[in-house]
Formats: sequence, structure tokens, C-alpha cells
Amino acid sequence: MVRAMSGESGARLERLSGMLKRRGFILPAFEIHGGAKGLYDFGPNGGRLRNKVNQMWLDHWISMGNIAEISCPTITPFEVLEASGHVGEFSDFMTSCLSCQEVSRADTLLENYHPNPDSLNKSELQELLSKESPPCPSCGDNNWSNITAQNLMFNTRIGAGSSGRDGFLRPETAQGMFTSFPVLYRHFREKLPFGAIQIGKGYRNEISPRQGMIRLREFNMAELEYFIDPEMPIQHDFSNWSNVNFTMIGEHEGEVTISIVDAIETGMVRHATVGFFIAKTYDFLTNVGIDSSRIRFRQHESNEMAHYATDCWDAEIHGSYGWIECVGIAHRGCYDLEAHEKYTGKSLRARRDFATPKEIAIDGWTIDGSVAGPAFRSLAGKVKIAVEELPLETSFPVNITIDGENVTVQENHVKRLQRTDTVTGEWYIPHVIEPAFGIDRIIWHILDHAYEESEKQGESYTIMKLNSNVVPIDYAVLPLFEKDGMGELARSLNSMLNNKFGVVSNYDSSGSIGRRYARADEIGIPVCVTIDHQSLEDNTVTIRTRDTGEQTRVKASEL
Amino acid sequence: MVRAMSGESGARLERLSGMLKRRGFILPAFEIHGGAKGLYDFGPNGGRLRNKVNQMWLDHWISMGNIAEISCPTITPFEVLEASGHVGEFSDFMTSCLSCQEVSRADTLLENYHPNPDSLNKSELQELLSKESPPCPSCGDNNWSNITAQNLMFNTRIGAGSSGRDGFLRPETAQGMFTSFPVLYRHFREKLPFGAIQIGKGYRNEISPRQGMIRLREFNMAELEYFIDPEMPIQHDFSNWSNVNFTMIGEHEGEVTISIVDAIETGMVRHATVGFFIAKTYDFLTNVGIDSSRIRFRQHESNEMAHYATDCWDAEIHGSYGWIECVGIAHRGCYDLEAHEKYTGKSLRARRDFATPKEIAIDGWTIDGSVAGPAFRSLAGKVKIAVEELPLETSFPVNITIDGENVTVQENHVKRLQRTDTVTGEWYIPHVIEPAFGIDRIIWHILDHAYEESEKQGESYTIMKLNSNVVPIDYAVLPLFEKDGMGELARSLNSMLNNKFGVVSNYDSSGSIGRRYARADEIGIPVCVTIDHQSLEDNTVTIRTRDTGEQTRVKASEL
Repeated sequence: MVRAMSGESGARLERLSGMLKRRGFILPAFEIHGGAKGLYDFGPNGGRLRNKVNQMWLDHWISMGNIAEISCPTITPFEVLEASGHVGEFSDFMTSCLSCQEVSRADTLLENYHPNPDSLNKSELQELLSKESPPCPSCGDNNWSNITAQNLMFNTRIGAGSSGRDGFLRPETAQGMFTSFPVLYRHFREKLPFGAIQIGKGYRNEISPRQGMIRLREFNMAELEYFIDPEMPIQHDFSNWSNVNFTMIGEHEGEVTISIVDAIETGMVRHATVGFFIAKTYDFLTNVGIDSSRIRFRQHESNEMAHYATDCWDAEIHGSYGWIECVGIAHRGCYDLEAHEKYTGKSLRARRDFATPKEIAIDGWTIDGSVAGPAFRSLAGKVKIAVEELPLETSFPVNITIDGENVTVQENHVKRLQRTDTVTGEWYIPHVIEPAFGIDRIIWHILDHAYEESEKQGESYTIMKLNSNVVPIDYAVLPLFEKDGMGELARSLNSMLNNKFGVVSNYDSSGSIGRRYARADEIGIPVCVTIDHQSLEDNTVTIRTRDTGEQTRVKASEL
Repeated sequence: MVRAMSGESGARLERLSGMLKRRGFILPAFEIHGGAKGLYDFGPNGGRLRNKVNQMWLDHWISMGNIAEISCPTITPFEVLEASGHVGEFSDFMTSCLSCQEVSRADTLLENYHPNPDSLNKSELQELLSKESPPCPSCGDNNWSNITAQNLMFNTRIGAGSSGRDGFLRPETAQGMFTSFPVLYRHFREKLPFGAIQIGKGYRNEISPRQGMIRLREFNMAELEYFIDPEMPIQHDFSNWSNVNFTMIGEHEGEVTISIVDAIETGMVRHATVGFFIAKTYDFLTNVGIDSSRIRFRQHESNEMAHYATDCWDAEIHGSYGWIECVGIAHRGCYDLEAHEKYTGKSLRARRDFATPKEIAIDGWTIDGSVAGPAFRSLAGKVKIAVEELPLETSFPVNITIDGENVTVQENHVKRLQRTDTVTGEWYIPHVIEPAFGIDRIIWHILDHAYEESEKQGESYTIMKLNSNVVPIDYAVLPLFEKDGMGELARSLNSMLNNKFGVVSNYDSSGSIGRRYARADEIGIPVCVTIDHQSLEDNTVTIRTRDTGEQTRVKASEL
């Protein structure tokens, strides 16, 4: 549950948001046009930070060796999201203020009247709303319309005129990965487990978005769909985490500090692969600079999970808005592939070989080719398939439909079939374990955790202690003065650094060195390089490190 | 103009498309649900290729040192796109077949009847359609409705109920960069030139998309908006291209082979920065594997350009669909910033310092504070501003409107103001030069140019000779057999390679080494690493290079 902060932490949040906007990390989108709720820009510093977080995330999973990145459209035809259940069920409960017309989410209005209004159904919410009649956050009146379900998908039309069709902006990246199962299965040479990852935009037409980057209408998602054979136990190597204590809140256990192996062995985490992804998620978050002491994993309660899920954990991160869900790791069973298979009639299965082949006795009917062949001609092959599916107790003649045509199979068209088949395997619907990352929320917390306020000579001083894996700018190059060739040397050094793949360097020549250090610290540049008179003589420069303030003299060529 | 190919090149295109689908590069999206015209997936090989092209593009521009990446929402409020002119003018001319209801673009239908139907206006198109009455590509009839203009933007609603508002999916990434001008100007410390780049989805609700990746409804765009002071000449360093001959088609010159410096000096390219970006574009395209002999730059004819543009060049690439526009480099003047400034009333200007300050004589009126202060009280400040804008010949009393209120200024409220101001600079609207890249079309041509068909032992054999900068998979690790520890060694080597940042390695143990080489060649893996008995003894492996087939033995640790 997300609540506004007050007092000192509220004031810090305001200063942080102000700095992030001023220095071009994140800022409300289209502000010169009055802005648009729930839409944010990543500015000239935030854009690169976002890209680095994305690339770190992709590499984190691709390194596993059996995971591939794909990219699907955000515009999604109606049928795909009807099959997945989103058309029917992806809604929030909404009510309108009858005085000012502002719409609100019913559960949000009732946050102060119930410990978890999110868990209430429509009629329970309606009852509580009528009883409590909370004030409208916009005009203060308490005069509410009846609650209605509002689908959260943005809709649009694909194509023009009568050949147009309904579509939506995807509410998650996952569906494109499920519909891509056939090409993934082929790519991984029909061997499970394997995974697909995708990073990109997701959309939810939130009723009344609040709290900056926490609840957006258009957001950056990163999802992994890991396809497994439910009958094949997977061996995971947990040795990397033998010394890590995870803070976990189990449905039955409450909050505990526990190793991941113990959490699995005691049954708190219900599947080893879910546990493995919890640990991998922890690594990713700390690699991009989330404070490890402010990460916890919370298990969904049974009534909170989707009906098909067998286990679900949220990675929550603590920051200016309290504990916020930033990652969800769910064991979704066979729900998704089965839903698309049922809807389309296309096979989304994998083949499993039996350890030893099975003998299966077959006793039924087949066609007698010498009679049925001339009788059914081009349909004979399809008649054969249909006849072989008939039960032994069938009595002929029997009517069957082939390609919409009625066909009568006489007794003399068929003969008894008795044999023993050796079956070496079977087709099954893979299960899916899905870690889903809210990139914007993670980026928010990276910034929140890195932001450090202090004082220097009586003035407030801020440093963004960003992890070097995600800093937008790697170097600031500062000529002590621009004269005597120091400017030229600094520019050529700056340009040399920028030409390295992936490296960004800023040239800054205005103000005192102290002011320039302060500007660099504010946006988290880890290294400042100062060029002075001595640099002109021996090509050495002064390196100053953001977090320690330490200064050392090095050869320019060593940068 | 895009036409379907026939004969041998059509057959090659079919084989290439089949391979790209089968091996998971690019394939029609949502195919199990019947697909959706104009929407494509990047599969498990294409997804990574796309990401690498994107990262190469970003780094290409960021290296310039004065260009920053930003990221804006794809959902864009109505107002932004009304200001930019897209609501009014971003349309194609459409006609419906009255027999089968299929809609078609009028210019496409008339391709065989006019050299450039794209250049015709609505009534010219209508006249030609009525005269020629071409057959419907869907049913063959020639019974067309009147032509109508169809806006190409996907529309949607942001928010719910009466507080919802109209929005669109952006048709280009550019508008978010124009509306971000204030934060960019601050980021670059108010010094032009600077640029913003953005990579992401763009959307056009094409009337009848055809030709695979060439005309998509949702596409990957990459745009640079480079903001310049039109009065400040920029020095570009063209020394990198002194030996490059560009194929260029000038509006007046026709096709010539020319150095970029000559193209600028002769006035064929009308602005040095446009020329610089033409050269940078050439570098990018060849860096990602486009065949340099199949790139040409074509200047727009005056009637083809937007009215505000002063020069525009397309980079065209030759491939299976003929010459296709893949990049547009346009000098857009001050059009975009001015349009948003006019619409919003917010300043989108930069300040230019005069080389020497200018003395400006002021002779007019101001208020006499001792009289006007008590008379106008809280409005006095605004009255002062209004009075100072009145011409010297004004005779008092005069009525003015302040904040909607009528105010009478008497003669005794004012006094003559005569002074000389020193003005050090002025505010101006920057000009914009915009290179805009169609990433999907570029990726298509990378694949098209890399695809090489040959024969090996009587069988057809294909190699994707992808540039190593963009290969989806860097290594294939092949144990000669999986026994005797070769499998384990290969797996551990494969895992070591995958753990390097950005490196992808595939383990493949099935089939003969020759078959495995062929599989690797088909998707362009540049290096195969074979582990054999000797590897177990001395930890050496055999490296086999895709393009030469050359095999060498190296230490595994050297990989």
C-alpha cells in the first residue's frame, strides 16, 4: 500500500524530486503542454541510467546460457488478450464523485477504513464505501456514484474502415513470449528448461495515478518467462548465496532471516526455481545499486494470488514511499500456454522422452484400404484417422464429418486393429515461472538510495552515490583554466574518453573547481579529471573520486 | 517506391524470409492467433541483433560528447500532436473497394499509372483514380469509393470517465525531444549546439501494410534532434571521410560520386551539419554491416519536402525490395520549437551573446510610483510593464486591460522615460537538424546483405555473414562427443563465455561437427569452438572462423 509521506521524509522527497527534475533524471512528461498524469520522461541523465539498468538486466539473464531476448509489438490484437484473460478480468473498481466528476479507485478511497481494501470484491467495496462515505480527494464532498469495474487496458483500432479490428496496448510483455513459444522451442532445440526475456513498454490506464514513478500509465517492464518440465527436477547451484541472509516474509512463517537453501528446504519457498530466481533477483538489485538492507521478499497470501499460481513472491524495496513491490516472481503453472492453446487450437507443448519406452496395447478399428480407398477416394486418409479414434464398442455403419462433409462408414470399410505400440515419450504443456520487474520503480529506488544530503561550509550539499554500473556519466573533465592550452588538452582528453564504447565524459569549464566538483557530485559522476599547468608539462592529471573525495595524480594515458 | 519482386530475386527473398522465421530472427507477430498485418516479432536471434544495433546507434552519437539520450512516453496527449501539426496533416489518402470493402492507399493503387503518385494532392489522385480505375488487389474488381484522408495515428483515451482525455500513440519520437528542450538546454549549460537522441517505438496506422519489415504499423525508430544557432557557423572535422566517395543524387545534379566536402562546398548539400550527419550516417550503416556499395543519398525535391524544411536527404539502401529509404536527414529550421512555443506560450529559446554589447536608446513612458502606486496598489507592477510598452506618441488618459480588469491610466500616473540600455545578447529559437533512422528497415537490410547462398556437396548452404558488431550469438561451443569429460569441459567453457558481459555462447552437441558448423553458419555465429580428446589433455580447443572456414588450435584460456 502506497501512502504519501509527511514531515522530514516528505521534505526530503520533495528536495530529491526537485533535483531529479532540475538535473534531468526524471520529470513529468509534456510539461510545457500542461503535463499528463502518469506519464514521465527520462531526461538527459535519466535516459542513460535507464538504458544501463536495462542492459544490466538483459545480461544478468542471458548469462545463464539458456535464455534469449525477444521483442514483440506493444499493440496487441483483441484475441490475444481475450485468450489470456485480460479482456475479462484486468480491471480496477472505480467510483465518480457526483459533485466534481473526478474518478477515484474505490480501494484507494477506503485505505483508511480497512487494512487491505485491495482484497475486497465489488460488493464488499460498495458496502464499505456506502457505510464510510470518505471525502473526495479532489473537492472534499462525499457523494459517490455506484462502483463499476474499469478495464485497465488502453484500447485502439488497428487498420482503417471496416477492415479495422480492435486492439490494446499490452498490459505486460509476457503474452508475446507465450505466443512465441513455438519459435523459442525450436531455437532451444526442443530442450527444456529455457527462458525468453523481453524489456519494453507496458501500459495500464490507471484510474488516478499518483506518486510519481510508482504508479505510471506507461511503464518500463522487464520480464522473464522460464519454461520448465514440471516432472523434471532442476538442479540449481546455490553456492553463490551460501553467506547471504535474505529477509523473507512467508505466508505462514511471518518475517524471518534465512538462507535461500533453507527457505526452499523448509518448504517456505515452494519450488527450487522460484528460490533460484529470488536469489538472482537479489543479485540484480544489488548490482544496480539498491541497498541490500532495504530489500525483502514477501510471499503472496493464497487469496492474493491468481487462482492458477502455486507460489508468488514480491521483491519489495524500502524507500521514500515505504515498502514498494518492485519485482514479482510467480510460479504460474501451465495456465498461460494452456489458455492460448485452448483459444487457438494450436499446440504449445513440449515433448518429454520416457526414461524407458512404454508398451501400449491398442485395440480398435482401422479402415480396410481395398474397400475404403475406392469408396472415399481423396478423403480416405482423413477417414482412416477418424476411424482409428473410434472406441472398440462402435457399431457400424456410423456417420462422421470430414472437412464439413458427412461420410457414412460401413462395416465392410473397416477391420479390427490389434497391436502393441512402443511409445517413447509424450507431449505436455510446460509450466512457467515468471520474474517480472518494474524497471521504473527500481530506478526510482536506485536514485532514492543513492541520494545523500549533507552540509559543506554551512551549505547543503548533495551527492548521488550511484553504483558505477549505472552512472549516466562516467567522467567530468575539468580544465583548471581554459587558457595556456589547458582547455585544448582537456577537450582532447574528453573526446578521447567519449570515443570509448559505452563511456560518457562531460567537459565542464565554468566556475571554481569546487563548484564543478559539486555539480558532478549532484548527478553522481564517479570520477573528475582535472587538467592544470603541470598537465601541460608531463601529461598527468588529477583524479578525484566522488565517494571518498580522494585525489591522486595519474598519467592521462592511464584513464 | 516499393514493389514486389518476381523471378529469381523473389525466390531468394522467399528463402531468406523462411530462414529468418525458422531460425527466430524476424517473424509475423501473434501468428498462433492468425497474425496481425504490419506487426512483427524479433525472435530469439533477432531480439539480440536488434538490441546490438540500438546500442551501436546510441554509442555512435553519444561519442560526439554533446548528445544525450532521453526517453519519453509513446502515449502522447492530443495537444502535443495538435501543436506539431500531426492532428491536422498526418494522413494518407484512402479508398475502399465497393465490392469487397478492402481499403487501399490511393497512391499505391496508382503506382503503375503515374511516375510518382505520392506527390499528387487529393483531387489529382481522385481524377487519376476515376480515369484509370485500377483493379482491387484483393478481389480484382474496379469499383472504388471516393478518396478520403485517413489520419495515420493510433488513437486512444488517457484516463477514465469524464476526466479522460484524447491521446495518440506517437508517430515519431521527435516531439518528446522538442517538448524536452528546456531540460536539455539546462543540461548542456545553455550552450548550443547540442543534441538529444531517443530510440523507441513509433506507430503509424498504415492503411494496408505490405512487404514485411519495410512498412510496419509499429516500428523501431531512432532519432537525433540537433539544436543549432542558425547564426553561428559550426566547424566540423571531415578528415575521417577524405577518401570516401559518396553516391549522391542531388535535386539538380542527378547522381554523382563525390566527397562529402565537395558536396558541401559546391552547395549541393545546403548546410555543413547536414553534410556531417550524412557522413556519420554512412559510418553507422557500414559499422552495423550494410554493404557500402549499396548505400546512396538522395536529396528531396523541393515539392517533396515539408514547407519549412530547407534541405532533406534520404539514405537509401538497396536490397530485395529495390532502393528503400532507411534514414532521413532533414534541416527543419525553427519549425518545431516555434510551433510548440506558439501553442503553449512557453519560451523554447536559447540566448545568444552579442560579440560586442549593443547600445539601445529607449524613449517612452513609465509610471510615477508616488502617484500610481497608491492608485493601482497590487496591480501597480503590471501597470508599469504595460505602460513601458506604450509608444511615445500615446496620449493619456488611456484604458488598458490588466488580468482581465479594465484600468484607466491618467496623465499624472506616468512620466517620460529616456535612457540608453546596454544589451549583451538576445533570445532566439534554435534551428533543428534531424537524422531519423528506421531501425527495422536497417535490420532488414543487414540481414539481406549478410545472407549468402551457395552449395556444398550438392546441397544448398547458407551463411549469414553478419558484422561481428551485431551478431546475436558470439560463439558456438561444440564437444566432439559428450563422453570422456568432453561434454563437461565444453559446458564449463560455454558457461565461462556466457558470464562475460555482453557475450553470448551456445552449447551444441547434437549431430556431426559439419552439421553443427552449418547450423552456426546459418545464423551467423562468427566463431565455433570445438572440444576434442586433445582438449582434455592440454586444454587447447579448435577455433573455426565462419567467413574463412579456417581452423586454428588455441589455448582455451585465450578465448
